[in-house]
Amino acid sequence: MRIEIVAVGTELLLGQIADTNSQWLGEHLAALGVASHFHQAVGDNQERIVLALRTALARSDGVIVCGGLGPTHDDITRDAIAEVMQVPLRRDDAVAATIRSLFESRGRRMPESNLRQAEVPEGAGLIPQSTGTAPGLVCPVGHKVVYAVPGVPYEMTEMFDRAVAPDLLRRMAGRGEASGVIASRVLRTWGLSESRLGEVLGPYIALLDEPVPATDAGPAPPGRATLAFLASGIEGMKVRITVRAADPAAAATLLDDHERAVRSVLADAAGDVVFGVDDEAIEDAVARVLLASGLTLALAESLTGGLAASRLVNVAGASGWFRGAVVSYASEVKFDVLGVPGGPVVSDAAARSMAEGARRVLGADVGLSVTGVAGPDPQDGRPPGTVFVGLARPGRPAAAVELAVPGDRARVRQYATIAALDHLRRALAADV
Amino acid sequence: MRIEIVAVGTELLLGQIADTNSQWLGEHLAALGVASHFHQAVGDNQERIVLALRTALARSDGVIVCGGLGPTHDDITRDAIAEVMQVPLRRDDAVAATIRSLFESRGRRMPESNLRQAEVPEGAGLIPQSTGTAPGLVCPVGHKVVYAVPGVPYEMTEMFDRAVAPDLLRRMAGRGEASGVIASRVLRTWGLSESRLGEVLGPYIALLDEPVPATDAGPAPPGRATLAFLASGIEGMKVRITVRAADPAAAATLLDDHERAVRSVLADAAGDVVFGVDDEAIEDAVARVLLASGLTLALAESLTGGLAASRLVNVAGASGWFRGAVVSYASEVKFDVLGVPGGPVVSDAAARSMAEGARRVLGADVGLSVTGVAGPDPQDGRPPGTVFVGLARPGRPAAAVELAVPGDRARVRQYATIAALDHLRRALAADV
Repeated sequence: MRIEIVAVGTELLLGQIADTNSQWLGEHLAALGVASHFHQAVGDNQERIVLALRTALARSDGVIVCGGLGPTHDDITRDAIAEVMQVPLRRDDAVAATIRSLFESRGRRMPESNLRQAEVPEGAGLIPQSTGTAPGLVCPVGHKVVYAVPGVPYEMTEMFDRAVAPDLLRRMAGRGEASGVIASRVLRTWGLSESRLGEVLGPYIALLDEPVPATDAGPAPPGRATLAFLASGIEGMKVRITVRAADPAAAATLLDDHERAVRSVLADAAGDVVFGVDDEAIEDAVARVLLASGLTLALAESLTGGLAASRLVNVAGASGWFRGAVVSYASEVKFDVLGVPGGPVVSDAAARSMAEGARRVLGADVGLSVTGVAGPDPQDGRPPGTVFVGLARPGRPAAAVELAVPGDRARVRQYATIAALDHLRRALAADV
Repeated sequence: MRIEIVAVGTELLLGQIADTNSQWLGEHLAALGVASHFHQAVGDNQERIVLALRTALARSDGVIVCGGLGPTHDDITRDAIAEVMQVPLRRDDAVAATIRSLFESRGRRMPESNLRQAEVPEGAGLIPQSTGTAPGLVCPVGHKVVYAVPGVPYEMTEMFDRAVAPDLLRRMAGRGEASGVIASRVLRTWGLSESRLGEVLGPYIALLDEPVPATDAGPAPPGRATLAFLASGIEGMKVRITVRAADPAAAATLLDDHERAVRSVLADAAGDVVFGVDDEAIEDAVARVLLASGLTLALAESLTGGLAASRLVNVAGASGWFRGAVVSYASEVKFDVLGVPGGPVVSDAAARSMAEGARRVLGADVGLSVTGVAGPDPQDGRPPGTVFVGLARPGRPAAAVELAVPGDRARVRQYATIAALDHLRRALAADV
């Protein structure tokens, strides 16, 4: 089954936004074992969308067209699909009623243009909207298919997972296609640079590159994997393991094997550097160790300005262990609110007092602090990128560590945030 | 002149990397006044690259193909172009010598495969390599043209600027084409939904769509513009104005005219909804009004968990007006630290007390607070999306407003943050 992706939006052609939808769809089609040999991007122009769809249908078994389903005058994907299907558009009363009630439930008046989203090419199936107002479409074109999904990323991904992927798998099963799959797993790490990761994992990668001999029993076993590294700021330093296998179960087993091996190599070289797998962020790892220890947390943030706190509240159930934070951007707030003694605020002593202050003022078991120099100018005689992380725990003296992180203001903040949260994770994990 | 971009690389189809080359090329073609109606991505497969090139040549005047010029076995763009041109590949001895000497100058042995990069389709022009080892190609196909450039971003951009852009401009001049430019400006707004923006600006857009009559003096004046709307979460609701004009100065004048007109339509319908232009974020707008008023600011954040504070510290010089924040995630922190009286914490009264508390505890002139329900569960009998923004200013009683914002946890937080900061901006702007 070969599916072509057609991204609609003049802003894509003009380079005003990156086409991250096609990237996401490409990754997720591959994970399903669906081949995607071509992607196209086209502007908000009906004639050209029609041409792009016809081109795609001529060389693939189906198309996912993404974007142009909204309520405004330049949302014309529906019209283009109807032209390709050679059918009229008809208003679907149920969809119209849903859109109306959505506006009513928010106590807002619905602009009439929103009813454009209830127009459906005759003969097309509907993918009910769940988070947005535009439904998706499943449009038969001869024995091929065009799926239309919104261009808003979270609406697109939700609709793909809920409706498009299951429909594709059904069609593949109907065609009797062996769906070989490509699958990936990401280990998220903190503490090693990208080049140091490459060095540490170099021998393992060299092993993977050796030819796997065919055996008498059949062709070479599908045991190969590729490793890639991706520096992702506050999301950590990612190690992506990719394998190809006959089916999802075999891929999962292979990924398990490689994950175990990579973890072991990393642990031997650098200790507890893996904090999460796939979408697990540093805040999820922190939540895990806090729940395991039964402790509550409070933060004192200076250069990170609330970034660490805003990450922690992403975790569902954070209210069970997160008390809050004092963002002490002005030095007086450090002195007056957190009880930091006078002296340089970018220092080991200030970080320790801030952590103690957060614990005391916000009534938590554990206090974590970050102070430092975001730049571009030095502060307290310290260069940009100087960061102190303080940690106060019950029954022991507060302690601080000093770090040097690279980058401009924004990157220094991101790195300082993940470094502080990872410091907390490791310290608590060592206690449990 | 219409140029199609064809990006080559299986990793693009698999979503392993984002196609930032096509984005960059799209932006830079537009700046030259070259239309680009379609982009394609295709894998490292000769048959499919040939098909993509033929498709592109059929619907555009030329193609920029990006990637697949390297030394390895899967770099086959040269072979595909030769097939499209129906000519053989021949080794260029001068290119081969340059590649050899490059390796020698670095004291490295040259793998023989590198000489693949010296293979040139018969009849193609060369773009000499300057930073990498693969030369670019200028390949005539009938009266059309295929430019081949490397996929490594800094090699691609360097070669585009040095050779492709000048060649395109020469061709456009040869065709007698006005080498106009396309330029855009973004007005960032808050307070109107995407569909409401469309409604308010509908009559203006309709006016733009009317045919501009040709005059006796020549063709229609280049006075047209297109408007597009883009919901961008915490970055606001964007109105993008795009114009085509003879040169950058004329484009800037046109953009000024349209900006003035759009601002006037928006102000008449909805008041002070434009908070920034192009890259100006809401925190920049807040910084501007605070600097103008000479007041300092402190925040009390509940559901936003530090997100508003972390945005404010993005502004260079924030330490001049930003004192800090109390992230009062636990209700006890609201009561004990901020002095909020008992009772529901998602309420007008709590928002007012939080704003007063932030002002008092952190020693600022102005206190801004956000409390509400991020979801998924209701709180204090209030549904997810309920948000109260409190504002305490010198010499007048604290006040709060209630909002209903849509979306899941993450989006409710983003919207609550921009809504609170925009509320502050408008209130202070009205005072100045």
